[in-house]
Amino acid sequence: MSSSITRTWVLLVGIAAATGVAAQEPAPPEPAPLTAAQSDPRVMGWMQGFPPPPDKRITQPDSVYFSFPRLRWSVCHIRQLLPTIGISRGLGDPVPLRYVGDRELERLGREIDALSFTPLDGRPPMTWEQSLAANYTDGILVFHRDRVVYERYFGCLGDDGKHAAMSMTKSLTGLLAQILVAEGRLDENAKVVDIVPEVARSAYADATVRQVMDMTTGVRYSEDYADPDADIWQYAAAASPLPKGEDYAGPNGYFEYLAQVQPEGANGAAFHYKTVDADMVGWIVSRVSGKSVSELASEQLWRPMGAEQDAYMTVDAIGTPYAGGGLSAGLRDMGRLGLLMLQEGVINGRRLFPAEVVRHIRGGGDPARFGNAYPALVGGSYTSLWWVYPGEHDVIAARGVHGQTIYVDFNAQVVIVRFASFPKAQNTLIDPTSIPAFQALAGYLQAAADR
Amino acid sequence: MSSSITRTWVLLVGIAAATGVAAQEPAPPEPAPLTAAQSDPRVMGWMQGFPPPPDKRITQPDSVYFSFPRLRWSVCHIRQLLPTIGISRGLGDPVPLRYVGDRELERLGREIDALSFTPLDGRPPMTWEQSLAANYTDGILVFHRDRVVYERYFGCLGDDGKHAAMSMTKSLTGLLAQILVAEGRLDENAKVVDIVPEVARSAYADATVRQVMDMTTGVRYSEDYADPDADIWQYAAAASPLPKGEDYAGPNGYFEYLAQVQPEGANGAAFHYKTVDADMVGWIVSRVSGKSVSELASEQLWRPMGAEQDAYMTVDAIGTPYAGGGLSAGLRDMGRLGLLMLQEGVINGRRLFPAEVVRHIRGGGDPARFGNAYPALVGGSYTSLWWVYPGEHDVIAARGVHGQTIYVDFNAQVVIVRFASFPKAQNTLIDPTSIPAFQALAGYLQAAADR
Repeated sequence: MSSSITRTWVLLVGIAAATGVAAQEPAPPEPAPLTAAQSDPRVMGWMQGFPPPPDKRITQPDSVYFSFPRLRWSVCHIRQLLPTIGISRGLGDPVPLRYVGDRELERLGREIDALSFTPLDGRPPMTWEQSLAANYTDGILVFHRDRVVYERYFGCLGDDGKHAAMSMTKSLTGLLAQILVAEGRLDENAKVVDIVPEVARSAYADATVRQVMDMTTGVRYSEDYADPDADIWQYAAAASPLPKGEDYAGPNGYFEYLAQVQPEGANGAAFHYKTVDADMVGWIVSRVSGKSVSELASEQLWRPMGAEQDAYMTVDAIGTPYAGGGLSAGLRDMGRLGLLMLQEGVINGRRLFPAEVVRHIRGGGDPARFGNAYPALVGGSYTSLWWVYPGEHDVIAARGVHGQTIYVDFNAQVVIVRFASFPKAQNTLIDPTSIPAFQALAGYLQAAADR
Repeated sequence: MSSSITRTWVLLVGIAAATGVAAQEPAPPEPAPLTAAQSDPRVMGWMQGFPPPPDKRITQPDSVYFSFPRLRWSVCHIRQLLPTIGISRGLGDPVPLRYVGDRELERLGREIDALSFTPLDGRPPMTWEQSLAANYTDGILVFHRDRVVYERYFGCLGDDGKHAAMSMTKSLTGLLAQILVAEGRLDENAKVVDIVPEVARSAYADATVRQVMDMTTGVRYSEDYADPDADIWQYAAAASPLPKGEDYAGPNGYFEYLAQVQPEGANGAAFHYKTVDADMVGWIVSRVSGKSVSELASEQLWRPMGAEQDAYMTVDAIGTPYAGGGLSAGLRDMGRLGLLMLQEGVINGRRLFPAEVVRHIRGGGDPARFGNAYPALVGGSYTSLWWVYPGEHDVIAARGVHGQTIYVDFNAQVVIVRFASFPKAQNTLIDPTSIPAFQALAGYLQAAADR
């Protein structure tokens, strides 16, 4: 793994996979990073001019383009750096989101910006508006019931832009799998090998579909970035869509990698967050449906939900979309996904999938297996590649490693969709100024509705 | 240039640049290629299955993905193979094309399919329908006045797909430049160095903008594929968006290449088709407008013309869109461009640019400088990166090297837009079954309108 070419793609896969894992690292003393305002890509001047000056260019490899502060530009321009496959919205008219009236939108905006909450990490109270900068927010959209009540764009993102969803991609893949389960096309109790015979010699062979969807497989997959032999590096090398060096002898693509993973513990014993499981779900979904994840996402979601933009996914060298982290999409279209979850499969008055799909996810996985790797989520669970939050709020979420989220609060009938480019790949640093902010907002909107 | 990585991208640039040049090669005796039906990507089974079987995969390098018959799949999937930049249609509703009534569309379809013409190369007469297969047509759309009268899709293309436009991209770039000229923002008589000082030591320094737009520059640029030192290889290596080998010491990207080209003859003396000139126009356009070609294409064309799909362009390693050949777009959106030319800047009742833009192009360049490299076009000319056909038909065209065209016949008020994936990069093999077919169709539609 000495070649810069086989190393390329490593970090992008790596940090997509690292959600929360870094919680175990002690925070080293280091200079404070640039603030959100200081690191705004327009302020930094990345990629401006023809050509951009050499010190303002953002290029391969990923150690350049996905390091802070460059990553604040790159999250909106993944397709310029890597091959991708489209998720078509089709050719029809987009179905506009419903907004509260202009005056109401303005009033709610002022009141929401002024909401105060106390971060979980001992920092003093801050306002909602301050939290947007604290979390390096690039775009945020809030629904109450089926209406947009709040929408803001920052940094590289505008309403017609697309942003890397990172590990939120897993929840898209999990949703497609759960739809196949609800439709009776995928048996969650089947052994993976009975659906994908290619994994016969892999640790996935004896896992059940449900174990893969809940990430309770006993698959060896280390994400220790300090270890040059860690699996994450081999996975990233296999997944790279760029030409591999002539000395490369490892697996080519997601599927070949998955077919050779080794066991490390028993299937079903415990939740262990690992990107490979999401890609295994992607393989299962494709084998059962006869369609790639990107094609199925278009057919089942992007086309019928009235999306206003095509989305896209990065691919490996044989065209497989990266089901564990490759999605880029518009903020409002991620909002449509959130609304579909809140409304249990219905959008624009049309049912796209059975209510049972969302009810299963809300029901959650087994909290006993979830463990305590995620301080803010202890007591919660992970099922069908969705996070199920602990507590009384009846919240599910998709989460990406730089602060991306689709947060659905069924009690308050609130959906919060956020794209962000937090400097570090550590949701444990983002949760303390996000979870209480989201709870404060949900409480405010619920109370406002009750008035 | 021994590394497979630095060679990658070579062929795609090469064949985009080769329109018509291969006329000088004698046709070697070789087995007949697969027919259009035999080489249909769906029949070949390319990239089907999860994963596709090894012998059905289409991957880097371009010597694989852009060789026939694989290229018949690749022309619809460039973004899966290379980094790209989007041309946004915006977020509004597409403005549907106007069609003749359903019954009329069906009747015209039958009659057009049965039209007979005599190829220019001595082959016996064939029908319009036979010509579609002879030219490996992937999609074709015909307007009479402002109505669609004929539309067909084959091979890899559907109405919601996108196809490589190859050298038709030049005409998009030329149109943007001509708009800037008409708006008084670009002086066609200025020397290039006065707009782009970086070319001070390049053969472009003393050329005028008009000479670059008409490809009459005296720039050294050889496209002899048999010569390993030919400029085309160096250009392709510079343009590749993939990581360059550690031993690579040449220019990085389109702009660095353009800044170091050497002279070979006098500026203004003769038309000589060379892709570098189109990229130089792209640089000029970007410097003057402050926007990339892709951004300007979105702002000036895709958004206001009511496009139904985003388009995209390939990029070099620093994000520069390939103004000489990188566009992929939907067939109907290329039709909207053709309609804009026919209607001299107006579409959907709205003027997008001054009529003078199209009038200049229709006026043509200097036929005396055009030479005889293109047998079917002798007496014609090339101006603003558009082909101006000889004869009484008042025809202009965008042309791509595998049979792609936007053909605008002002006399007959007919626009023909074609995507194709002809096995060889030789329009001289495609013109004989295209030009007389287009003339027969234009005559038929004109006569039908007069009845």
